[in-house]
Amino acid sequence: MASVRIREAEEGDCGQILRLIRELAEYEKLSDQVQISEEALRADGFGEKPLYRCLVADLPPAPGDAQGPRVVGYGLYYFIYSTWKGRTVYLEDIYVTPEYRGQGIGSTIIRRVAQVALDQGCSQFRLAVLDWNQKAMALYKALGAQDLTEAEGWHAFTFDGEAMRKLAGK
Amino acid sequence: MASVRIREAEEGDCGQILRLIRELAEYEKLSDQVQISEEALRADGFGEKPLYRCLVADLPPAPGDAQGPRVVGYGLYYFIYSTWKGRTVYLEDIYVTPEYRGQGIGSTIIRRVAQVALDQGCSQFRLAVLDWNQKAMALYKALGAQDLTEAEGWHAFTFDGEAMRKLAGK
Repeated sequence: MASVRIREAEEGDCGQILRLIRELAEYEKLSDQVQISEEALRADGFGEKPLYRCLVADLPPAPGDAQGPRVVGYGLYYFIYSTWKGRTVYLEDIYVTPEYRGQGIGSTIIRRVAQVALDQGCSQFRLAVLDWNQKAMALYKALGAQDLTEAEGWHAFTFDGEAMRKLAGK
Repeated sequence: MASVRIREAEEGDCGQILRLIRELAEYEKLSDQVQISEEALRADGFGEKPLYRCLVADLPPAPGDAQGPRVVGYGLYYFIYSTWKGRTVYLEDIYVTPEYRGQGIGSTIIRRVAQVALDQGCSQFRLAVLDWNQKAMALYKALGAQDLTEAEGWHAFTFDGEAMRKLAGK
């Protein structure tokens, strides 16, 4: 565990982040929905106006390994706005590849995001979980989170591509 | 209906937007959660780096009315990021005051947000609804939205103030 480092993602990490985004979507049984490309992740996260921020957990390369550090986990987040409580951080994805779980990497990433959120004046920290992922739900609850869908009845709705274009009359 | 105008909010609208935020929270039976102030709405939406954007529906002042236009509805939104589909618009609040419902003001605001989203290169349009608000759910579904909590099982989680500070170790 001593060798795993948590740091801010750099543009050059996007290929490895995309690999983990795909692993996570597969775990969530929703991998048919991944349409993002490495190029989009680079442009969207590392341009003039970044659309997200990302922490990665990486392993230093083994001696003689020319490939550089290997990314084994990530937490991708951005800032949203609550009309009740103001600036809020939203953790879109949190993932650690299976063979590195159980070492506290995920919790460390979550704590680091909470520190950033406090530094940025956020009043709350939000994320979404799939209802069958009881292990994740239990972890977040143990860390102090509240299930708003359970407590208040919030449902997430989306207008996808075609529905949004129709809505816009285009 | 002819006299209702939908336009981008200005800083001077924040007092009236806050009145409607409180009306909406009361309707949602969650008004104890509203901590935002007019000053915060002004600073957060109309500073150098706005945290949200807002459309308002207003009525022109009656002849001799010195109070200016009256805001009767609003849609407050911002941009989020999906690791599956990229840039996404999120409609945080959509509300029309009771005596002006049934005239298509809400749908018009939603359509306008969809147009902005398309112009900004968004691939999807998201929002959240309370499960007992069947009228809103039916409207969004009729407009083409999908209930992701129902279809895929997504639950919204939050770490509120104290939980977030504990998480950050502060």
